[in-house]
Amino acid sequence: MTLIVQKYGGTSLGSMARIQAVAGRVVKRYHKGSRIVVVASAIGKTTDELLGMAKALSDSPRTREMGMLLSAGEVISSALLAMAIQSLGVPATALTGAQSGISASGSYDNARIKKIEPERIHRLVNDGEIVVVAGYQGQRNEDIAVLGRGGSDASAVALAAALSADCCKIYSDVPGVLSCDPRIVQNARLLPRIAYEEMLELAASGAQVMMGRSIEIARKFALEILVSSAFEESPGTVIGKKETIVEKSIITGIALQKDIARIDVHGHNGEGRFVKNLLANIAEEEISIQLLTSGKNILHSPALSFTVNAEEAERTKVILKQLLADNLIADFSLETDVAQVSLVGFGISENYGIVYEVFDALSSANIDILMTSTSEIKISVIVAKRFGEASVRELHQKFALAFPPGKRKIAG
Amino acid sequence: MTLIVQKYGGTSLGSMARIQAVAGRVVKRYHKGSRIVVVASAIGKTTDELLGMAKALSDSPRTREMGMLLSAGEVISSALLAMAIQSLGVPATALTGAQSGISASGSYDNARIKKIEPERIHRLVNDGEIVVVAGYQGQRNEDIAVLGRGGSDASAVALAAALSADCCKIYSDVPGVLSCDPRIVQNARLLPRIAYEEMLELAASGAQVMMGRSIEIARKFALEILVSSAFEESPGTVIGKKETIVEKSIITGIALQKDIARIDVHGHNGEGRFVKNLLANIAEEEISIQLLTSGKNILHSPALSFTVNAEEAERTKVILKQLLADNLIADFSLETDVAQVSLVGFGISENYGIVYEVFDALSSANIDILMTSTSEIKISVIVAKRFGEASVRELHQKFALAFPPGKRKIAG
Repeated sequence: MTLIVQKYGGTSLGSMARIQAVAGRVVKRYHKGSRIVVVASAIGKTTDELLGMAKALSDSPRTREMGMLLSAGEVISSALLAMAIQSLGVPATALTGAQSGISASGSYDNARIKKIEPERIHRLVNDGEIVVVAGYQGQRNEDIAVLGRGGSDASAVALAAALSADCCKIYSDVPGVLSCDPRIVQNARLLPRIAYEEMLELAASGAQVMMGRSIEIARKFALEILVSSAFEESPGTVIGKKETIVEKSIITGIALQKDIARIDVHGHNGEGRFVKNLLANIAEEEISIQLLTSGKNILHSPALSFTVNAEEAERTKVILKQLLADNLIADFSLETDVAQVSLVGFGISENYGIVYEVFDALSSANIDILMTSTSEIKISVIVAKRFGEASVRELHQKFALAFPPGKRKIAG
Repeated sequence: MTLIVQKYGGTSLGSMARIQAVAGRVVKRYHKGSRIVVVASAIGKTTDELLGMAKALSDSPRTREMGMLLSAGEVISSALLAMAIQSLGVPATALTGAQSGISASGSYDNARIKKIEPERIHRLVNDGEIVVVAGYQGQRNEDIAVLGRGGSDASAVALAAALSADCCKIYSDVPGVLSCDPRIVQNARLLPRIAYEEMLELAASGAQVMMGRSIEIARKFALEILVSSAFEESPGTVIGKKETIVEKSIITGIALQKDIARIDVHGHNGEGRFVKNLLANIAEEEISIQLLTSGKNILHSPALSFTVNAEEAERTKVILKQLLADNLIADFSLETDVAQVSLVGFGISENYGIVYEVFDALSSANIDILMTSTSEIKISVIVAKRFGEASVRELHQKFALAFPPGKRKIAG
């Protein structure tokens, strides 16, 4: 008998009626003859509400209590979903992360799954029960840790791997992975398949379908993930190995990030050491650099450009001001009126002309590229924020990601 | 160094500002040089909201998931209170019931504390930390159980006993135990001390200051409890041994219960057996009988009167209808327009004339007594519901419970 792990996002559990609807879907699948483990996110905006309460009480709450606080959202939703399933006549048991055998390590409020001992879940599903696991959490020693944003996806993927599940299905309020944000490009295409690596790059570039960490776990265990809608019948998107993708396109998806800050730093002539200092300080503050370019011979004409998340801008500025005060750098500038457009696809590594085509498409539309960075499967460009959406539309058009005319458009 | 257990009720933790106020009080006491364990109730109406969600999903949710669901309220409030204390510069650790070493047995949604292993709490307070324990919950085997209504009081009292605390203070939105509900009698008196037994009878008769179970635990361990206000400076009421009460009065307090139903049952002549059947059926349905009177020779003139909580009236009626259909009883009547007034005090057992005085006071006010029942330290009378509050006022006046004129009146 197949074993399926399903994960439902917060919006799909956003009201008692929605929880009942999800219970109905789960039970329907159960009656088709599968053993089912469901991972539940917190209801609606619960996590944000709990975070807001914590912030009202303390500027820097201790992570241990933060983990304990935030774990409650998923404990509530999983207990309620189990009750809704029980009321449909199917035995169901809700388990906290700890009860599910999930051990975590690292920070209490941004932990990683270390180990899963799935004996209790196995026993329950083999007894014919549907198991509902509180997502986003695990046991750290004797205490509770939460897994960071998107952690319920990580719970689902890691559980599917530990249980040797036949598949892992992530249900949320989107029909799957789209070639582009449908709010920007109306004819965004639902991708039938995408490779782990492409999905990783898209996630890192602002696509909010799934967090990178979950994709890394799936890739490590070669576990296929289906991303689909909790609200409508959608074929969804399978995230899997590159080799399994038959219909290949040069560019798989385009992502836009509007909440970034771009920093230019100039060192004193011949003194490239500032780079090491700067990067060390940024790493120490746990600020994540998203895109970084520098001159080829940085030791002699020291200049560095990089981007950070907009909410890290102020803290980055503090570091730069200190370096300036210590006379370790000559100058810096920071601007937040920029956006990053990223194209992702395995075709990039095999098509040397793509970068040119990107420049060509944007310059034809009179959009200046302020900065660029490429990797094996990604091209990112920084443009003025006001041109962000237009850039996405131009590039989507250029690389023909849109659904072929005459076929059904997937709404977002 | 003294060890104090403090418990704060849901209203006193009803907003972030109130949680900060409670943190301030706790820290103030800490700086006076005590080790402190705080037990937190769920914020405001959280428990009722969670119950409402469960009821929207299932008519009879499984108790195991109900316990898990309801425990989340106190996990949230204790984590938040610990954060608020930390932000005042004092180390604090929040613990779930299980992390506190509290084991429970019985139903998952109405459990009793079985054992407390307080090593972790001892270690933390000895390290100078304030420990905030999530009330109302414990570990049952590998799962979570909640302790039933008023369970956070039970957590506090049992923890105080297990920790050999110097005192246990219950802070809520009332200044202490009053001689009477101040919404009914304006000059209700704050009792400086009350005996466990009296408090038990008052609680069983509708006084909502504290649940009987907590008082039983305190009495078992001869632990004095101070009940006081979380909002204002009040001397509060000490619940303790009878012997420690210096200033004794005949009647300590008066309680009113308006949500009751009174049932009269008539058996067939000479067939008193119906009583056994009736009581067995009622016990099986877990309906609690509050007051029961019968004729002296029930086998020959079988008639029985009793009261139940109004919300059990319908289920009681079902039982009686069945007995009638089976011809085991001759007739029954059920009325809900009645109220029960109870006078509690050790003086009752030593003053034979009290019952007469109660009858006298009420008849002078033209209030009919429909039913009466007395115990060692309690006299309860049933009157028409419309006379309930007037009866309380008459009796309060008669037995001079009011604060002597010229002294400060305690507002409710």
